[in-house]
Order: sequence, then structure tokens, then C-alpha cells
Amino acid sequence: MKTLLPYVSTPEDLRALPAELLPGLAGEIRAFLIDKVSARGGHLGSNLGIVELTIALHRVFDSPADVIVFDTGHQAYVHKILTGRRDAFDALRCRGGLSGYPSRQESAHDHMDSSHASTALSYADGMAKARHLAGDGARAVVAVVGDGALTGGVAWEALNNLGAAGHRPVIVVLNDNGRSYAPTHGGCADHLGRMRASPGVAVFENLGLRYLGPVDGHDIPALERAMRAARELRAPVVIHCVTRKGRGYEPAERDLDEHLHAIPVTDPATGRPLTPSPKTWTHAFAEHLCALGERRPDLVAITAAMPGPTGLAAFGRRFPERMFDVGIAEQQALASAAGMAMSGLHPVVAIYATFLNRAFDQVLMDIALHRLPVTLVLDRAGITGPDGPSHHGMWDLAALALVPGMRVAAPRDVVRLCELLEEAVEHDGPTALRFPKSPASVEIPPAGSVGDVDVLSSSGQDVLLVAIGPMAEPCLSAGAMLSAAGVGLTVVDPRWVIPVSRDLRRVVAGGRLVVTVEDGLAASGAGALVRQACGPGQRVVNLGLPCEFIGQGSRSELLAEAGLTGQGIAYAIRKELDRWPL
Amino acid sequence: MKTLLPYVSTPEDLRALPAELLPGLAGEIRAFLIDKVSARGGHLGSNLGIVELTIALHRVFDSPADVIVFDTGHQAYVHKILTGRRDAFDALRCRGGLSGYPSRQESAHDHMDSSHASTALSYADGMAKARHLAGDGARAVVAVVGDGALTGGVAWEALNNLGAAGHRPVIVVLNDNGRSYAPTHGGCADHLGRMRASPGVAVFENLGLRYLGPVDGHDIPALERAMRAARELRAPVVIHCVTRKGRGYEPAERDLDEHLHAIPVTDPATGRPLTPSPKTWTHAFAEHLCALGERRPDLVAITAAMPGPTGLAAFGRRFPERMFDVGIAEQQALASAAGMAMSGLHPVVAIYATFLNRAFDQVLMDIALHRLPVTLVLDRAGITGPDGPSHHGMWDLAALALVPGMRVAAPRDVVRLCELLEEAVEHDGPTALRFPKSPASVEIPPAGSVGDVDVLSSSGQDVLLVAIGPMAEPCLSAGAMLSAAGVGLTVVDPRWVIPVSRDLRRVVAGGRLVVTVEDGLAASGAGALVRQACGPGQRVVNLGLPCEFIGQGSRSELLAEAGLTGQGIAYAIRKELDRWPL
Repeated sequence: MKTLLPYVSTPEDLRALPAELLPGLAGEIRAFLIDKVSARGGHLGSNLGIVELTIALHRVFDSPADVIVFDTGHQAYVHKILTGRRDAFDALRCRGGLSGYPSRQESAHDHMDSSHASTALSYADGMAKARHLAGDGARAVVAVVGDGALTGGVAWEALNNLGAAGHRPVIVVLNDNGRSYAPTHGGCADHLGRMRASPGVAVFENLGLRYLGPVDGHDIPALERAMRAARELRAPVVIHCVTRKGRGYEPAERDLDEHLHAIPVTDPATGRPLTPSPKTWTHAFAEHLCALGERRPDLVAITAAMPGPTGLAAFGRRFPERMFDVGIAEQQALASAAGMAMSGLHPVVAIYATFLNRAFDQVLMDIALHRLPVTLVLDRAGITGPDGPSHHGMWDLAALALVPGMRVAAPRDVVRLCELLEEAVEHDGPTALRFPKSPASVEIPPAGSVGDVDVLSSSGQDVLLVAIGPMAEPCLSAGAMLSAAGVGLTVVDPRWVIPVSRDLRRVVAGGRLVVTVEDGLAASGAGALVRQACGPGQRVVNLGLPCEFIGQGSRSELLAEAGLTGQGIAYAIRKELDRWPL
Repeated sequence: MKTLLPYVSTPEDLRALPAELLPGLAGEIRAFLIDKVSARGGHLGSNLGIVELTIALHRVFDSPADVIVFDTGHQAYVHKILTGRRDAFDALRCRGGLSGYPSRQESAHDHMDSSHASTALSYADGMAKARHLAGDGARAVVAVVGDGALTGGVAWEALNNLGAAGHRPVIVVLNDNGRSYAPTHGGCADHLGRMRASPGVAVFENLGLRYLGPVDGHDIPALERAMRAARELRAPVVIHCVTRKGRGYEPAERDLDEHLHAIPVTDPATGRPLTPSPKTWTHAFAEHLCALGERRPDLVAITAAMPGPTGLAAFGRRFPERMFDVGIAEQQALASAAGMAMSGLHPVVAIYATFLNRAFDQVLMDIALHRLPVTLVLDRAGITGPDGPSHHGMWDLAALALVPGMRVAAPRDVVRLCELLEEAVEHDGPTALRFPKSPASVEIPPAGSVGDVDVLSSSGQDVLLVAIGPMAEPCLSAGAMLSAAGVGLTVVDPRWVIPVSRDLRRVVAGGRLVVTVEDGLAASGAGALVRQACGPGQRVVNLGLPCEFIGQGSRSELLAEAGLTGQGIAYAIRKELDRWPL
């Protein structure tokens, strides 16, 4: 069989192909995806499901003159292959390599770098408004959105605007595979399910958009027909495409939970990880929450469409009645948690740190203003890694530091994770617990303690090194290096890092130079609060991440670049001491 | 005619009344509202529209055993009258007096203190989940929500959850008056309009909720019938009640823009303010934006359902094509602004500072990550006043300080407002401009300048006083007091307050004691960044608001309480100098 893929590098190449060759091309793209994503890790299932749809998009629309925006972004691999970036897949998600999301730097065919779900319809609305003002209505604006992303409120906000603007013809391509990570729940998903079976009045029509479909999302001619019809309507329209996540790859189709949504480095033949994954913070949290759930019948868990990645799936299996998946709907997750807490429950909302930013107002106005006992568990805090700038959870400490009455814990090891989780759910007010995406440190025993503050090591009091959460390890190694060089230094872990506790205040008061280390914003996080708590005779250095968007790479690469290794921390302290000796 | 209102202080009293007396009672409540709200200022139009609906609610449901949550909260005045708080209306919105919103401290009949729109359905969902778990499904959970609030995404997130839970019977009472502040725009509003005229399949039914209505929202028997029917359904249901904002008060019905939504102290006979309002920051902004709009055809304006209060209405009248009201949908406001900016426009999004928290992720991931030229104009920044804790705009500086590449300006007077607005829309990246709800200072001329930093007064270099925006006035007066007492002190206004500019860095480097003053969080705002920029030999004091929820009161009362007056600032500096002399 002749291979086509090497000859299809641009949308023009694709449009020049006879239609009968397209199914073969789709097969080649799938084989390519399985090969490359298995080798580097990345989003597999969603991209396997969108092969034909992407082919049709690039045959019907003339990108980049016609704009195609991909919501959430992880479903853009096929789009990348078809817009000249096939060869870059060998460095997929590596530092300096191909992004796992659209990237304006990579290609004129990409329009948004953000990979947070549900916003693409708003971008499309803004772009269509701009084109209308410029009198340039002939070019299409197309937004590709998953059914999962429709559970996010901002998608509704955009649809509400699109539907009222009959003269601004945004084309919404709904890639309905019935799931986000996990199966999509909710009234809208049920509605889409009914529409698949027997079309009635679609919710989109109620809002003023036209509705075309359902279309078999793996039938290229049918997709092309629907897209051409949508374009000719010159009105806001939804094309309802029904696809199958993981399509054409047996291990992905067989994985009924997530259809291999996102995979680590994997054996392509089996779809199984090549190296067994070490125990992560997430695993430890998941286990301990289940244990607490046995003792505390008032504990309930809430996820925003991520039961698997947050570890809540285990709690859900054990206590199905007490587990709530609200959709990709962080605002609803937190505001419904407020309602539950008002009614005597203690909700644990497990969420990626980066997505907490989508519900900042709910933290403030719905949970903190009412001083409600809700525990936020922030996974993927700090540097996350290959998912790049919009997935690093580097704003959580700084944002939570602004919330009156909020208490934040950052465990340094699994023992502390369990301990702090218990303390959090015992507290009658808002709490948060944050940890990174990485193997967990099993135990870093304290050498002593001052009230709530653990002293991890001490060779003197000149330098007081405050380690936030997983920074304990590099701080200890920095401490060892400096102590060996004759610097009197104490490493402490405050455990509860926001607000600055009385105990921590007492401890740092003894240091002539206080150094804080966190994998969050250096200037505005937990360390900045310590700086505020220090007296006028003390010097303070806050180490952490710069206030910049940080690219993709492995967590260890990026932490090293930010100076957050043992050597980096030791170097920074040494530099400070050289500059202004104590 | 016999007056009833003095004898109706509780829901029990209300339920004991014969139905034929209720229209008379409604009339008395309206007269009471007009009287009391005119005297103190507050939300009038929306409460006049909800009189009959509230009467029916308290006759059908047994609050507080049955929970009634009022979304947005400003429509709860009638509810307060009917739950024992009639006499407190003389101190409505005063310091220590009756809140203009539900307040858990005031009454067991109130459940949420937050007054940010669109979240009540989520609370209700959480409460219903808790009751279901407790096996207590007999009691009703009722959420009263306006049509305006349905344009907010979190309402959709909640409906999506409610609709999929047929066994959790939340009753949504939709108070459809066709407006938020201004007329409600969007596909959903059009849909509700069609449903009023000839009911078809409601959007709610598509999501799995039942639909009852439309019901005349001023017909008490009809409302009671619908509510009883809803209760008996034991399923999630929307009762579509059609009301008229400002009903029964001629000046309010005549005001077609906002139906006297919120009023200052007013002559009840005419509905006109008793004292002419002085020129505010909002007015100055509105005028200057129109002037800039003439010169810059790429300038567009976006409001989240507040064309009047943000001053954008004037721009909209002048440039109707370039003005977009997206609904109470701050996420959509900012994300669609991103789309517009990508397409060559420069959007100006005018929004209350407190509501920016609802779109923090959009500031970060949609605007800043793409380095887009969008200008956020934050009105009601700092202490707002009688609207209480959820309306103070005290988080804006601290939150924007976390956003890479964001530049924030705080004008001290109208001259600077115009200047900084021009600089903002010239900048090729994200900017924000913030000012309070208060009369604007016309001009505080600089005595000199260091690059971009204005020097406002100087009697020496010992103390360097950095005044943020409207804090210039009290800082100047503090400076005069201290200078008179022999302290060498310089007052500067950095104009652009985030990030710390090279010029400001240079200026503060000369101060032995650096004091920053802002009407935002003391520990985490613009001043905290100045602290980070200071050297080890310098002392820094950050004055500002405590990290606490601050109650209602006048802006000047609350600023004085926080020490942000001339005297308060002088006292704080004097105390610092006494404690640790320079």
C-alpha cells in the first residue's frame, strides 16, 4: 500500500487529494499518532477521535484566512500534522520542542495558546465581532469544542452571545465523544445523547443558533457536506459531530474509563506504560481520603470532570453517593461545595491548581466570606511539566494568600500529606492542601519542632531557611552544603504555610537572614507573607518562580532553571551572604 | 383603609392573612420600600418588581425549614420586611445597620451573604445534595434568580447539574423582568421572550428540568398555584415568573434604562436625587473614552451588563457598533476581548473591581499569556461603601500583581485618569486602570518628576511616601503634618503602580523609610511589590486594607477605620519612627 502522509504537509496538499484516498490517510495519521504519542507521552484518545473531523475542517475551510480555534487545545495534534509540523512530533512536549497544545509561535494556523477548557467560543465571538466591524464577514470563524467543554459556564456565556447575533456567522463544530477525561455528566450531555438518537429542538436552537446534525464524525464526506452547509448559512450554527474517543486503537477503545485520554510513555502494542509509575502525591491523597471517608460520614468529594487524574475515582467507588462530578465547572464545584458545607457536610474539592484560578471568586465570596468548612485539594501545584504555561499551578499560593481566613498546607512528604489532610477536614473553616505532580517523598522526618513548625535540620541560627512543601528536599540538601561550608543554618517546614502562624513568626524571628523557598511565585506567595512578618533588622530573600509564563519541559528541568534545586538554593544563599555578610 | 403591614412581621403572620387582603399588603410594602429606599439609597426597582412573588414564596414555603436563597441578593428587601426586619430599614446600608443583601448574621431566613450574581443555583444544588444524603428530601430548596443572572456561566453549570438529578427537587423561581441593570441581551433572553409569548420547548426542559409558566409575577394566586405545583412535582423545576421592574412606582416605570435599579438618596415624589451628584471618576472616564474613540476607530468597549454604572453607555450611544454588552458574563467579556485583540482591535473592558475576580483566569490565560492589548477599567476599586463585603474592590491590585506582563495604573486625579487611559490604550499589551466610586479629584499638580514618577511634595528624603491613586490626597496631608513636625519626607505618585518601574525603584532607593499607601490589601498589593524592590538597608511599611472582609459603611468611614486618612497615615509613620528612629 502506498503511503500518503509524507506527501501531505499542508492544507493545500490535503485539498488536492482525491476523496477516496482520505480514509487511508486517516489510518496513517492514527498509526503516526499511536507511534509518536506512545514514545513521548501526551493526549492520545481525543486525537484518535478527531482525525476525520480535522481532515474535513482543513478541506472545507481555508486556514489561516478562515480561523479555526481548538478549544482546550489537546485535540489539535491532527491539526498540527496537517499544518506542517509532522516532523516536530519527535520532540512532542519536550523542552523547546513541539507544544502539546496550539501555539501561536509555532504556526499561523494556531490562534490560542491557552489550554483551559470552554473559552474558544468566546474567542470566536470576539473574532467574529472584529471581522464584522472590519466589513470582513466573508471569512469563516470556526470553533471546535468538545461536549465536555460545554459543561463549563463560559461556553454558555459565549453561546448566549453568539445566538443573539444572527449576522455574525460563527461555526461551532461540536466534537461530541460523550466525555471529557471521563464520561460527560449533566443535563446537557443527556440532551446531546437524546439528540443523537432522535433529533428534536436542540438547546442551541433555543439560544438562537442553527443546528446541523447529528453527523457521523468519522464519515469525511458527511462532515464536509455539513461544514459546507454551515458555511453557506451565514448564521451562527452548531454542527453536532458524533465521534468515538480512542477510535481505531484497540487499547484506547477498550479503556472505558478514559479511552487513554492522556498517556505517559507507553508500549504502543498494549497501550500500557513502559515503566511502572511510582507512588505519587495523588495516590497517597486518594488512599487517605478513602480512609477518612470511613470515619467521617459527612465527608463528600467533588471533582470538575477529573475523577481519575485527581484520585477521587477511588473515593467514588467506595462511596458513590458521596462523590459528585459537576463537569468542567470549577465555579459550580466550589459554589455547590458552599451549599453543602452550609448544610452540614465537609466537601473536599480536588482540582488542578491551575484550574482554581477559574473559581477565584467562589473561593472568596462563596466559601471564605461564609467561613465554610470546605477543603480544596490542589493537585499539579507548582511546576507541572510538559503541559506548559497554562498548566503550571504556580498561582495558587499567591492567590490563596489574598483570601481572608483561608488556611493553606503544603506537605513535604506522604506522612505530612495524611496528617495535614486530617487537620484540614477537622478545621471549621476553609482550607487548602497543595502538592505537585511528581513521585511523593515517603518520609522526611523532623529533627524537632517549635509548636506547629517542624525543624528539619540545624547547624546554627544565622540563616533560617523556610521550606514550603516539596521544597523541603532541595532545602535540606542546600542546608547540608552550606553547613559543611561553615554557615550556621536551620531548615524548617511550617506545614501550614498560609497565613504565617504564631509559631513560624517566633521561629523566623531568630534568623538574621530568612530565606523562603516555594515552587510558586517568589514575590507574592507564602514567602512574601513571611517577609511581611519579619522585623526591620532582618533580611529576607524569597526564592521561587519568576512572575513569567514558564514553558514546557520536565518538572526537574524547569525547577533547575528557576534555581529551585539544592545547588541552586545554596548558590542563591551564598551569593546573598557574599554581597552583604551577616 | 386599614393598614396591614404593622401586623405582618413573620411568614406565619403572612400565611394567616386571607388571600383577598394580599394585594393591599403588596401596595403597603411598595409604599414602604419607596419611602425607606429613597431616604437611604439602595436597590429599588428590582424590589418593587418582586413584591407579589416574595409574598407567594413565604405563603407556600415554610422558611427557614424550606430554604429560599436569593441570587444576587439585592432583590431580598421584601423578604427582609416579611421576616421580621421591617424596623431595621431606617438604617438600611448604614454602618452597623441593615445589610442591602441577605445576611446570615441578621436572620435564620438568610443563607448567603455574597451578592455576586448567578451563584444561587449552585448553592441550591449543594444544599439539595446534602439533604438527599441526609435522607431529608421532604423540605424544599428554592432558588430565586433573575433572567439577567442566567447570562452568567455558573448558572448554566448549575442548571446542567440540576437537570441531571431528577431525584433532587430544586425549585428555581425565575424572576424574569427582562433586565439586569439594563435590558438583558442574548440568546437566552430572546428565548425567554418567545416563551412569554408562546411557550414551546424551554431550554430548561432540554437540560432535564421541568418548566412551569409563564406565570404573571404580580398575580399572587397564580404564583401560589405554580409554586405548590412545583413542590408536588418532586423534581427539578423552573417556574417562569414574568415581573415588571419598578412596578407600581411611576418614576421607576418611566425610567426605561434601568427602572431605578439602584438609587442614591432621592425625593420619593419625583424619583430624582436630592443632591446633584458631583463629577465622579466614572464620569471622567466615560467622557474621555468617547474622546479617544473619535481618534481611534479600533477602540471598542465591553460591559458585563452594566453600561450605565460603568459609564460605557455614553460610548455606546456615540459608537453603537463598537459597544458590546455580553451579559453578567465577565469570563466572556474578557475572553471575547482576547479574540477581538487578536483581530486588531483594542478592547476596553469596564467592570467593577470586585467582579474582576470572576474572570481571573481569563486575565491570566486568555489575555496575559497572549500579551494582548486589552485595557481593563476597574471601577469601584478599593472601599466601595454601603454595598458591603462582596462589593469592595480590594483584591484587584493584589490579583493583578500576579499576572505576568500586566501593567496597572492608578490615577490620583482626573488629569491623570485621562493621561493614563491614553497611555493604556497606546500600550501593546495588557493594561488595567483602577479608580474608586467617589467624587474625583480634579487636579493634584506634581511638584516635579523623576521619569514616570510624579513627585507631589518634598521636605526631605528620610521618609519616602508612595501614594497609590486616590491615596495621594491623604498622603499629601499626612506629609504636610509630618513635615511641619520636622520629618524630612517626600510624597510620590508612581502613576503606573504595577509592576514597580525602574523610575520608582530609583526613587525609593533614596528613602531610609519607605511607606506605601493603597486602598487595597496592605500585605499583597502594589506596596508589597515595592517592598520586594527595596534593598536590605531600607525599612518598608505597607499601609492599606487588612486581609479581612470589611463590612458596609460609607467610603470615608471605612477608610478612616483602616487608617487611610491623612491623620491615620501620619500616625502610622510617627509610630514607626518612634519605635525605630531613623
